[in-house]
Amino acid sequence: MVRGHGNDALIIGRFQPFHNGHLEVIRKVASECDRMIIGIGSAQYSHSRDNPFTAGERYSMISETIRDEGIGNVSIVPVEDINRYSVWVSHVVSMCPPFTVVYSNNSVTRRLFEEAGFELRDSPLYNRKEYSGTEVRRRMAEGGDWESLVPSAVARIVKDIDGISRIKELTGDSPDDLKD
Amino acid sequence: MVRGHGNDALIIGRFQPFHNGHLEVIRKVASECDRMIIGIGSAQYSHSRDNPFTAGERYSMISETIRDEGIGNVSIVPVEDINRYSVWVSHVVSMCPPFTVVYSNNSVTRRLFEEAGFELRDSPLYNRKEYSGTEVRRRMAEGGDWESLVPSAVARIVKDIDGISRIKELTGDSPDDLKD
Amino acid sequence: MVRGHGNDALIIGRFQPFHNGHLEVIRKVASECDRMIIGIGSAQYSHSRDNPFTAGERYSMISETIRDEGIGNVSIVPVEDINRYSVWVSHVVSMCPPFTVVYSNNSVTRRLFEEAGFELRDSPLYNRKEYSGTEVRRRMAEGGDWESLVPSAVARIVKDIDGISRIKELTGDSPDDLKD
Amino acid sequence: MVRGHGNDALIIGRFQPFHNGHLEVIRKVASECDRMIIGIGSAQYSHSRDNPFTAGERYSMISETIRDEGIGNVSIVPVEDINRYSVWVSHVVSMCPPFTVVYSNNSVTRRLFEEAGFELRDSPLYNRKEYSGTEVRRRMAEGGDWESLVPSAVARIVKDIDGISRIKELTGDSPDDLKD
Amino acid sequence: MVRGHGNDALIIGRFQPFHNGHLEVIRKVASECDRMIIGIGSAQYSHSRDNPFTAGERYSMISETIRDEGIGNVSIVPVEDINRYSVWVSHVVSMCPPFTVVYSNNSVTRRLFEEAGFELRDSPLYNRKEYSGTEVRRRMAEGGDWESLVPSAVARIVKDIDGISRIKELTGDSPDDLKD
Amino acid sequence: MVRGHGNDALIIGRFQPFHNGHLEVIRKVASECDRMIIGIGSAQYSHSRDNPFTAGERYSMISETIRDEGIGNVSIVPVEDINRYSVWVSHVVSMCPPFTVVYSNNSVTRRLFEEAGFELRDSPLYNRKEYSGTEVRRRMAEGGDWESLVPSAVARIVKDIDGISRIKELTGDSPDDLKD
Repeated sequence: MVRGHGNDALIIGRFQPFHNGHLEVIRKVASECDRMIIGIGSAQYSHSRDNPFTAGERYSMISETIRDEGIGNVSIVPVEDINRYSVWVSHVVSMCPPFTVVYSNNSVTRRLFEEAGFELRDSPLYNRKEYSGTEVRRRMAEGGDWESLVPSAVARIVKDIDGISRIKELTGDSPDDLKD
Repeated sequence: MVRGHGNDALIIGRFQPFHNGHLEVIRKVASECDRMIIGIGSAQYSHSRDNPFTAGERYSMISETIRDEGIGNVSIVPVEDINRYSVWVSHVVSMCPPFTVVYSNNSVTRRLFEEAGFELRDSPLYNRKEYSGTEVRRRMAEGGDWESLVPSAVARIVKDIDGISRIKELTGDSPDDLKD
Repeated sequence: MVRGHGNDALIIGRFQPFHNGHLEVIRKVASECDRMIIGIGSAQYSHSRDNPFTAGERYSMISETIRDEGIGNVSIVPVEDINRYSVWVSHVVSMCPPFTVVYSNNSVTRRLFEEAGFELRDSPLYNRKEYSGTEVRRRMAEGGDWESLVPSAVARIVKDIDGISRIKELTGDSPDDLKD
Repeated sequence: MVRGHGNDALIIGRFQPFHNGHLEVIRKVASECDRMIIGIGSAQYSHSRDNPFTAGERYSMISETIRDEGIGNVSIVPVEDINRYSVWVSHVVSMCPPFTVVYSNNSVTRRLFEEAGFELRDSPLYNRKEYSGTEVRRRMAEGGDWESLVPSAVARIVKDIDGISRIKELTGDSPDDLKD
Repeated sequence: MVRGHGNDALIIGRFQPFHNGHLEVIRKVASECDRMIIGIGSAQYSHSRDNPFTAGERYSMISETIRDEGIGNVSIVPVEDINRYSVWVSHVVSMCPPFTVVYSNNSVTRRLFEEAGFELRDSPLYNRKEYSGTEVRRRMAEGGDWESLVPSAVARIVKDIDGISRIKELTGDSPDDLKD
Repeated sequence: MVRGHGNDALIIGRFQPFHNGHLEVIRKVASECDRMIIGIGSAQYSHSRDNPFTAGERYSMISETIRDEGIGNVSIVPVEDINRYSVWVSHVVSMCPPFTVVYSNNSVTRRLFEEAGFELRDSPLYNRKEYSGTEVRRRMAEGGDWESLVPSAVARIVKDIDGISRIKELTGDSPDDLKD
């Protein structure tokens, strides 16, 4: 596996959707690293309650936000789940430009990259009660104030793709005649 | 994607098993449409508590019932799950004869076909408390009266394949020494 | 595996497209058997030189032809390739209504079903020089008389879906800038 | 499917990890059969709470234990899940040396091999409250006495691969910033 | 499927490796379009004669070249092959930011996007005898002058990852004892 | 990835079938190493011209031969192809007991394990004109003397499973009516 230079970093998440907590992480990593790779995990999933947005939609959310922020030297990479953890690190490495540092607080991600010899760093902590994908999706479904939790580019894109009606429909209680 | 003529309809379900509620839907669609495609979803699954019957067994249940009913112009199509919703409509379209209308009350199915430009119609409502796959399977497992909930062809096929003993064994409490 | 009754037969092919040779086989099997299952193999492939038509398009070709012929008691079943021969028979069996007889002259198909204990019968021989999918596709691509090689329903469907232009484009010599 | 001789037996489990209950089963089967195949199921999974160990690690646990026990004529075979039960027996058969008897108390395993015509035998019963993978993993995660529940070779291997820290990390409560 | 604005374009290729012909295409598209998405096809393949480089390596080749060129507003997206053409357009759409125009001279790509209703434009023609992946890889394997065929960033990356020795080894004639 | 001790070796091949050339390699490795893992590659393939035998049949060929030879400390591991080289080493490592040395003359195998940091050693050379899977399969299909090219246990197993008739049928010229 080809490794990156001393200070090239990976962060990886599902970004369903990208929110202000993610943005804080990215600002911090941008201030500490030469290059940043943002991996969009579970790239093949969309249109479900927990994964409403496609990888392409999430790509737009991230790329427009970092442009608004003026953050440079970022590579955005959709990464499909491969569903066998023993090869997951090799899979991510093969899809991404080289990196040596991984920012994560997720236990599985940390363990797998540590076993593969990468340097792990803690992600910065933020207000995780508000800034969480679950909370944002809950407010979207229930008609709450989700816009204050996400960067303005994300709010714009969600409206462009009519994302609120998608989430409302996907979490709706309409009778499910033929699925049962 | 090649579309069907104005009044060719798809209904899609798991049919585990096909029951009288499904039959009501099919009668209604047959009365409104020129051609009907019945997609057997999750075709690759069988022999589990929630998906006891194979696609082939479900195919027989449906084909023998519509023959008994004298409903013509029906295409039955097993469709394997592809587990990425963004391509699911294209997948169904590629497996089925052409159609333009989709009957469904299921929110994911509705949303995906709507985003792809199909005409959605509500399935007719029926007594969903009794006529549900879950209820039929529960009665099969517990020795209740399941036969009154399904067309007679379905009851015949379930007996032919010894389906009750399969369901009882699959939902049994036998100790599971090696799975743990 | 649940087996069919004494005289229920499977024939399985790719049907790219369904042609008059296939029709001869089906007429013969219909005259000898109580029920016939027509498996559409390699169901997931389409839009390539050797597999131009989708499973749904091939389903229509077959169902309209057997309706024109007045052949009854036929189940048409798209079957995706599973790419491991050791489980292929179990896969086909799980997707199809029950059968006990397999008509095939294909060596792999014969061997696999024989090892699984099915009765194999030879398909009737016909003029294989003209009636072959390769020859039909060649004529379609080169502008020859392909219509005399296929049932009239097939010719009608190929025109409906603009199949000739698809095949011509797929076999064209347009420069392939980005694939290389 | 090629069948084994009269007394060649399969046992199949996940072995996460291999524990003293499994060892009792294997001793009993060794005393009753000529040859034994030990299938390591769900071979592709590892590094999760319920499936912490790789197939290779589980292979070592089993091979070193049976060497310590002096049990001969054993074939150990990792078997990946194929996630469609209708072909699972064919899949296992294709991966393993021939066998005719299956020892299992698991209801799905029993049903599938019975439908395929194999002889099923009950696994011996042991103290399932202590000897269960769930209990061993719980003690590993919480710092309890897990070593008394597993053969000494297993304890040795778990230490070699630093398995306790892996399990503790995988079941930890560290904040999961980017997964949400 | 969410479509892009009037002038957002996709080009998709394997880029094994990215060469000067690709660069000509990208310059042309950049001059005609508002936004450009560069899809890296067959993303999961690497380390073979025809696909020597990983998606991540190809990502670096492209991102560093467009930075050197000063081309902005580009999204680079690795796209894994899904091996069923009927869903390929939906798959690409789900992985990419929105687009409405597709530049391609490849017949399958053109046909599939045309059937899905996208606007197709011809890629600009360049010297395809020299500027082809096959020719670049041939020169790399045989020690010819490949560097004049690729942008300088690509040459730099190929050296960083020791790509020439990889290609030479992969196309070598060393005896293949165990593969046969 | 957990590595083995200094002298634990992997050899990996398809073994279609296991022949005397393979046996020479295994004898040499056994004399040089403490433990040997024999990986059966392309484990999921069988019943084709180039891959006639199942992984289970190949497992028996190898296990019975090494028992006849009196070679100990061997682990036999079927390994399914995963069809993306970038993760293949991680996949093999996850399926096998630990190893540090790889014996191979195959260029892809060598390159991939070298990039992952393993020690590569050349396999011993033998008479590759006679001792090759291709030659053995050719003689099996054509009725030549294949038995002198394989260990006696292999000859015995091939007869037990009626392997010659399988190979003859799979390479036969019987007309292939429905495949075309």
